[in-house]
Amino acid sequence: MTISVAVSGASGYAGGEVLRLLASHPNVTIGAITAHSNAGERLGALAPNLHALANRVLVDTTVENLSGHDVVFLALPHGASAAIAAQLSPDTLVIDAGADHRLEDSTAWEKFYGSEHAGTWPYGLPEMPGHRERLKGAKRIAVPGCYPTSSLLALMPGFAAGALMPDDVVIVAASGTSGAGKAAKVNLIGSEVMGSMSPYGVGGLHRHTPEIEQGLSNASGLDVQVSFTPTLAPMSRGILTTATAKVSAEFAALENPEAVLREIWEKAYADEPFVHVLPAGQWPATKSVQGSNYAAIQIAYDSHVNRVVVCAAIDNLTKGTAGGAVQSMNIALGLPETTGLTFQGVAP
Amino acid sequence: MTISVAVSGASGYAGGEVLRLLASHPNVTIGAITAHSNAGERLGALAPNLHALANRVLVDTTVENLSGHDVVFLALPHGASAAIAAQLSPDTLVIDAGADHRLEDSTAWEKFYGSEHAGTWPYGLPEMPGHRERLKGAKRIAVPGCYPTSSLLALMPGFAAGALMPDDVVIVAASGTSGAGKAAKVNLIGSEVMGSMSPYGVGGLHRHTPEIEQGLSNASGLDVQVSFTPTLAPMSRGILTTATAKVSAEFAALENPEAVLREIWEKAYADEPFVHVLPAGQWPATKSVQGSNYAAIQIAYDSHVNRVVVCAAIDNLTKGTAGGAVQSMNIALGLPETTGLTFQGVAP
Amino acid sequence: MTISVAVSGASGYAGGEVLRLLASHPNVTIGAITAHSNAGERLGALAPNLHALANRVLVDTTVENLSGHDVVFLALPHGASAAIAAQLSPDTLVIDAGADHRLEDSTAWEKFYGSEHAGTWPYGLPEMPGHRERLKGAKRIAVPGCYPTSSLLALMPGFAAGALMPDDVVIVAASGTSGAGKAAKVNLIGSEVMGSMSPYGVGGLHRHTPEIEQGLSNASGLDVQVSFTPTLAPMSRGILTTATAKVSAEFAALENPEAVLREIWEKAYADEPFVHVLPAGQWPATKSVQGSNYAAIQIAYDSHVNRVVVCAAIDNLTKGTAGGAVQSMNIALGLPETTGLTFQGVAP
Amino acid sequence: MTISVAVSGASGYAGGEVLRLLASHPNVTIGAITAHSNAGERLGALAPNLHALANRVLVDTTVENLSGHDVVFLALPHGASAAIAAQLSPDTLVIDAGADHRLEDSTAWEKFYGSEHAGTWPYGLPEMPGHRERLKGAKRIAVPGCYPTSSLLALMPGFAAGALMPDDVVIVAASGTSGAGKAAKVNLIGSEVMGSMSPYGVGGLHRHTPEIEQGLSNASGLDVQVSFTPTLAPMSRGILTTATAKVSAEFAALENPEAVLREIWEKAYADEPFVHVLPAGQWPATKSVQGSNYAAIQIAYDSHVNRVVVCAAIDNLTKGTAGGAVQSMNIALGLPETTGLTFQGVAP
Repeated sequence: MTISVAVSGASGYAGGEVLRLLASHPNVTIGAITAHSNAGERLGALAPNLHALANRVLVDTTVENLSGHDVVFLALPHGASAAIAAQLSPDTLVIDAGADHRLEDSTAWEKFYGSEHAGTWPYGLPEMPGHRERLKGAKRIAVPGCYPTSSLLALMPGFAAGALMPDDVVIVAASGTSGAGKAAKVNLIGSEVMGSMSPYGVGGLHRHTPEIEQGLSNASGLDVQVSFTPTLAPMSRGILTTATAKVSAEFAALENPEAVLREIWEKAYADEPFVHVLPAGQWPATKSVQGSNYAAIQIAYDSHVNRVVVCAAIDNLTKGTAGGAVQSMNIALGLPETTGLTFQGVAP
Repeated sequence: MTISVAVSGASGYAGGEVLRLLASHPNVTIGAITAHSNAGERLGALAPNLHALANRVLVDTTVENLSGHDVVFLALPHGASAAIAAQLSPDTLVIDAGADHRLEDSTAWEKFYGSEHAGTWPYGLPEMPGHRERLKGAKRIAVPGCYPTSSLLALMPGFAAGALMPDDVVIVAASGTSGAGKAAKVNLIGSEVMGSMSPYGVGGLHRHTPEIEQGLSNASGLDVQVSFTPTLAPMSRGILTTATAKVSAEFAALENPEAVLREIWEKAYADEPFVHVLPAGQWPATKSVQGSNYAAIQIAYDSHVNRVVVCAAIDNLTKGTAGGAVQSMNIALGLPETTGLTFQGVAP
Repeated sequence: MTISVAVSGASGYAGGEVLRLLASHPNVTIGAITAHSNAGERLGALAPNLHALANRVLVDTTVENLSGHDVVFLALPHGASAAIAAQLSPDTLVIDAGADHRLEDSTAWEKFYGSEHAGTWPYGLPEMPGHRERLKGAKRIAVPGCYPTSSLLALMPGFAAGALMPDDVVIVAASGTSGAGKAAKVNLIGSEVMGSMSPYGVGGLHRHTPEIEQGLSNASGLDVQVSFTPTLAPMSRGILTTATAKVSAEFAALENPEAVLREIWEKAYADEPFVHVLPAGQWPATKSVQGSNYAAIQIAYDSHVNRVVVCAAIDNLTKGTAGGAVQSMNIALGLPETTGLTFQGVAP
Repeated sequence: MTISVAVSGASGYAGGEVLRLLASHPNVTIGAITAHSNAGERLGALAPNLHALANRVLVDTTVENLSGHDVVFLALPHGASAAIAAQLSPDTLVIDAGADHRLEDSTAWEKFYGSEHAGTWPYGLPEMPGHRERLKGAKRIAVPGCYPTSSLLALMPGFAAGALMPDDVVIVAASGTSGAGKAAKVNLIGSEVMGSMSPYGVGGLHRHTPEIEQGLSNASGLDVQVSFTPTLAPMSRGILTTATAKVSAEFAALENPEAVLREIWEKAYADEPFVHVLPAGQWPATKSVQGSNYAAIQIAYDSHVNRVVVCAAIDNLTKGTAGGAVQSMNIALGLPETTGLTFQGVAP
């Protein structure tokens, strides 16, 4: 099968990572590569790592340029993707790496994004219970946010098993700076971020908060509420998520809660190609998944506070964005799910 | 006043930082500089940043070499400092940067350190309510751990004011690698840590957990329990602590809990020379306190989960270790508390 | 074609990178994975980035374990590989990532390595004029050092064209810390290397000096002498080489030496799959080649000192070691040269 | 003595570093702090590391605001400082951290800066032979560029002693990103620079080239020509300069050129408070001088190419800019030269 693909937003990090992966995808022919203010430039001048595509010239992000492909990836600011998507053929597979179609609750959308809600698309997290089936044959897919991807992978098994309490979830995540985008801002320049950790969006303000709560609520059937604090770490890529929740009385009363909990997570991911619970005693490091579509997870039970603590490491641009998007594309098109994706991280 | 000072453990990061600060302290004459396996070497070969002391030769860490000074700093592995301290004159001010004399509870000591408890010394955190007075004239001072310093500074005001619940505290902290010591270990080499975040001591296993709980319990009069997760960040120095706790019903019922809570923190630190609650909207970054004795703090109230989230940034080696130690020395000796310490961080 | 491959030295960075690449090579089946002190351990505990091979157990680096494969990669300390290689079947393709068989001059070997010279193998730098042919069907290949790879790629075209003077070459290169190996040394720990640049092996002492001189002398037919200074940069991967040489009188007298020189480099690499002279005005950055087998090169002519200045960026572990090794393997076995290698760097 | 000081350009890195140092200078009272587009803002919002000055409000960079102080530091874009300086009282000590008044040759100024030359001021590098005297009582001082500071400190002793050839100097320097300023540019954001080395201004294009040549020519009485290549390293601060020159026939013919050369450098800096030739075998690292006014230097003689190779490490913002400026101020005002400056680097 040969698939023609267009990629919009190619001058940003998400679009660039989609191209990096598609350039090695055996079934893909890369058609239009689009951008907004950078239209007309060589891709090699904007993304010098994409050597095989260096001489491709970016065209404007228009419906006309994006039409006529089997698949269109949208890596655009929120708002922009919904406007474009509405005009693309319903027979085209449209994969939106932005936020426009992730949330189910219009009120939450309006509260956090301040605009009208564009509607909800199938959520591109195949590891969510029951979701893989919904992605087969789908023509519209909303790629999860990077923090929600790692947070949901960390906590879904426990919530799906009824082992965790919904009202006391705390997630603190450290992201590489690429999560803040390829933006010319003084607070993002290397001199400021190297050697420094800092928080942002503290107090439930980050837009990924309702998306995390939606996913955990769907997994548990409960109304899960999350205290979420994102921090910026001095590295380009990677998210390390530390997620903790109180264990339900039923599970806390077991003889060996840690062993039972570990088994829940291990079983949940036993057949997943890209999610792995590490052997006991080994903790995830973001570099070990760099550039790969892998998520590495470890779990502990802290009996003195009756909490499970789960740490998950992903590459925010790969599994957290472009890799998850390609994985979903593979499922939607009936290709082997792992096609064009790597299991090996670039480390050290 | 001229004070003669000996520093042990000078080849490690804590000892080196003590020397860096003392070299600029106007009242201090640096006497013996001691080490264990590095005795006989030039300091300049071990700590090339200490230019003014480069030609000083390290001597063995013995009671004889340390005796005869007004002040002795111990920066030794736990166990070692207690053994030395017991043989130093009771008239000498002994400041232990190690863990031996921090905990009040022998059972906690034995559980986390696996040896006999050496006893409890005055705790060198002047910002703890009532503690400054206890340090005046003291002859033995236990320097707090780096994580406890930032964690206690973050949460003490709320606990002292009765605004926080004791049973639901979650702290996730990111530390620079110097917190792991100057140790030749493969997992600490630059190739492994650069570009990577990873957790360790997850599940209540880190030895600083009981020390944090002790401090918060003392501040509140309650039995505070903490879920504490330390992580290693790709930077040499700095700790960013994210600490969150449920707000008590009384305070949650107020009309504007965030304003009231902010005022509690601001008042608590209004007269502190080295702790500052940042203006609303500005979040701490570890680099802004690099090399200084400053702690930068910001607070948010997340109404949807009824939690306060406090972020604190310190330099783990300065305010978190050597700076706190010098600050305590100044108080103990009756010097102005800020002598020899800097307010300005080395940034960018 | 299916090729069985054994990899020795798998617990080091070179061996780990060979495995990372081979895991995605469509013609390769990975047989024995060997180590010395780490034999018996899971690969996942030593190289957690190699997810697909995580449960493979390392065996001892013995002739017996390495025998019976079509290809054997040796990533061993110098001296060790020669001893093993001598006992492997002459029909096995042995690719030595170490130094033992690179130098042609026994005297130079003895001066820089202090042991008896093991002999010279075909040099695995296909971009060296005439070398690609010598690698076809070869059964023994010496992988070039990382600094020589970037240095030779930078200067060979000019020397081959007779445009450069042999007696005034200066090369200063900055390498990521993985070039120093996966060694538990205090000077390599993250706390020391992050935020710091430092030189080493200054004054012609680095063992790669004679290898660079050998390559440039072979390319030019002259006796090229090089002042080579390596430095350690605060990054895990990558080499940026800055190489400069005086331009010969004949070329300096041309009307537009820069244009002529640029054309020499561009023509030399026009058909090379993995070496690219960037468009004028764009300078190479190591991150743009991270994890890829690509070399990015740019050239300038400084008329006021009559020097060409060439900058080359490679990934020291990929094109500089394991990627170059796999590229040579492909040529030796008659596979398409680019099989299993990537053109795209992992950036940002 | 109490000195009132005004600092312009306080929102940039050079101005911020001047303030960081002056805040600890015992003789200084900080008066006006000025900026251009950031006038009206709290300093704490722009430079959160300057805790003691956090509540100071920036005023416009005008002659009126800068007048009435004993000393004025100008940290402004080139062109701007000359315009302001011309209107300040001749009795005020004006210290220009910018380039406007460094060059002696108007032709070189016009070639590299493209505007009319504003004239030459005393050059604020006290370590230059004979210069310290010229700075005493001076009312106008041009602070050297950061690359020239390290390059001149590296090579001046050899040129002053007649030991080096003028026509074959090669300098390659790696700078931290703060050298590129506090500018919102995509190529400077952390995601781009972390993990990457890249060159710029290659081929004699960098504006510091004529300044380096001027200094070495003045030191030697010869017409020194330099091939200078600057590179950007993934760190916030620091410059590591690798400078090499051919040794003159007279010195090369000596029995032990390396010992003689080393003695020349050691003697040249024997009485300098801030420049130190390291003991043989120890090489400078930029982190060991971080935040200090120290320059660490090491020298090697490479007999096989008859070259001296000198490596120098400074902090580009301290000794390379603001520290050198304060050092010159101290000399000009008759204060002890080291007042308010530190010898100890912030490391690790």
